[in-house]
Amino acid sequence: MRPELLSRVLSLLPQAGRRPELNVYAHMLRDYPQRGGKGIRSELLLASARAHGAQQGTPAWEGALWLAAALELFQNWVLIHDDIEDDSEERRGQPALHRLHGVPLAINAGDGLHAYMWAAVHRAGVPGSMEEFLDMIHRTAEGQHLDLSWVEQRTWTLSEADYLEMVQLKTAYYTVVVPLRLGALAAGAPPAQAFTEAGLALGAAFQIRDDVLNLTGDPTRYGKEIGGDLLEGKRTLIVLHWLAAAPEAQRAAFVEQMRRDRPDKDAAAIAEIHRWLLGSGSVAHAQAFADARAAEGLTLLEGALQGAPDQAAVRELLDAMRALATRDA
Amino acid sequence: MRPELLSRVLSLLPQAGRRPELNVYAHMLRDYPQRGGKGIRSELLLASARAHGAQQGTPAWEGALWLAAALELFQNWVLIHDDIEDDSEERRGQPALHRLHGVPLAINAGDGLHAYMWAAVHRAGVPGSMEEFLDMIHRTAEGQHLDLSWVEQRTWTLSEADYLEMVQLKTAYYTVVVPLRLGALAAGAPPAQAFTEAGLALGAAFQIRDDVLNLTGDPTRYGKEIGGDLLEGKRTLIVLHWLAAAPEAQRAAFVEQMRRDRPDKDAAAIAEIHRWLLGSGSVAHAQAFADARAAEGLTLLEGALQGAPDQAAVRELLDAMRALATRDA
Repeated sequence: MRPELLSRVLSLLPQAGRRPELNVYAHMLRDYPQRGGKGIRSELLLASARAHGAQQGTPAWEGALWLAAALELFQNWVLIHDDIEDDSEERRGQPALHRLHGVPLAINAGDGLHAYMWAAVHRAGVPGSMEEFLDMIHRTAEGQHLDLSWVEQRTWTLSEADYLEMVQLKTAYYTVVVPLRLGALAAGAPPAQAFTEAGLALGAAFQIRDDVLNLTGDPTRYGKEIGGDLLEGKRTLIVLHWLAAAPEAQRAAFVEQMRRDRPDKDAAAIAEIHRWLLGSGSVAHAQAFADARAAEGLTLLEGALQGAPDQAAVRELLDAMRALATRDA
Repeated sequence: MRPELLSRVLSLLPQAGRRPELNVYAHMLRDYPQRGGKGIRSELLLASARAHGAQQGTPAWEGALWLAAALELFQNWVLIHDDIEDDSEERRGQPALHRLHGVPLAINAGDGLHAYMWAAVHRAGVPGSMEEFLDMIHRTAEGQHLDLSWVEQRTWTLSEADYLEMVQLKTAYYTVVVPLRLGALAAGAPPAQAFTEAGLALGAAFQIRDDVLNLTGDPTRYGKEIGGDLLEGKRTLIVLHWLAAAPEAQRAAFVEQMRRDRPDKDAAAIAEIHRWLLGSGSVAHAQAFADARAAEGLTLLEGALQGAPDQAAVRELLDAMRALATRDA
């Protein structure tokens, strides 16, 4: 995230404790935010605020900055808990928090950071923003529940529609829909109805792009393990599309690996599945689907922002959204 | 908690989802609140509101009820996460949530419930109450961090003062200090300064009583496993007092068991340690300490409430606090 947001985030968090143990706690809260996340969601919120007429140095801009800080805090506490739920190894190129400090302390640090998120929302003082955050968390938790319960139940008989429902709940609201809405609210404008449909399309495109990068990305630029989604048994559009037409032997080998917990998966078998996926047409299918959804979302968004007061900012926002859906890392 | 609070809590939570998986999610959110917790903290908040003049049927009382519902939601999401952090087996006589659904889904359900707590705080609309909840969560998370890091590091070289600092942060604020303050705020009165010192004394007494019951309680009435604190390696005043004077062989046997993770502990050795503790004077020492702190806290609280508008309610509040510190379950 941009430095002025990071310093806002850090200004809310404890610096040090009265005891050595509480120094560790303070350090844990500050760790993920300082690992250099891209700040995609906060930038989108700020771009939306500018498009809706919030100008730097005004109270509206100040409100937008606190909401952007809150969104970054949301992202960071969710990542701490997600990394435990998925038993991820890395986050932004470093070990996941629970791998440094153990699961109990990491759950607790995530809870602490969650509360500081609400402190930022409160500080923003933007009418309607608390409802947006409540709604966002409810949906994100539902999406996360869907995803985790499929992992837990070893459910692979899922349609592309199932996947899209999960991704909309788990990713699209907090990545696109809510940042667009919060930017409007910060500027004192009612959020356009069309933000929801546009954001769901763009959010799905964003997540599918992430799924593609997880298989094909540059390990030095992509912050997570390449192939990590396979190790974590994640449902992706790519895998569901491939499964529907895979040779029976490949399908059986896949399901056998996915039946195992992460530590029991066979690295060689996973590497082979990874190669099958790359060799199938499923990555291209998923990317084409994402491109179509992105184009659809951009058209809707362009329409929704036609009357917005700052059209230069609207163009920047649309460019940034387009770049996100086609990013390389 | 009282039925009218439970129905308020449940009215905020999802009833059922659009998919079978989301029915499970809704069920998980509603599970702990429906297990019949005693509602100690919400009753204290309501008693404080009455003492400060909030009358049933008024907007002030309505605000107090929503804050009480929020406090119950706080207690319940914290318990879901605590049970994971401590790897507890039971909660209120039934398996802990993560033992029913696995750790990932239970972490996520706790996060969902956390957000609904803020919905209840928001619904109450009582000025200053959001700050109270923020402050309460920050302190509780710090106390939990202390407790968990001692478990993690196998730290037993702790003084009674260390234990008390942990318990004040982890238990006293959310159990006594903040309910007293929120009751005043709901009634439109500034919380008395002395609530903090009174609440810290009473909260410590409450927790020490809980530690005593965990060793000596009636298994049919106490909602957790008797001896569970030993299996979880919890620091208590009883254990720290006993360790300071225990025969070397007993001390060594204790430390050897506490070095092990819960599943590796030897049940017979733990049962023997349990007997040593019961046979030592340490339970009586801890109970006497708790009684003294309770008396001190009650005196401070009586003084702080001398000028409160409803003195009948003040007497009820003091009686309830006295009962808590000497309860049997």
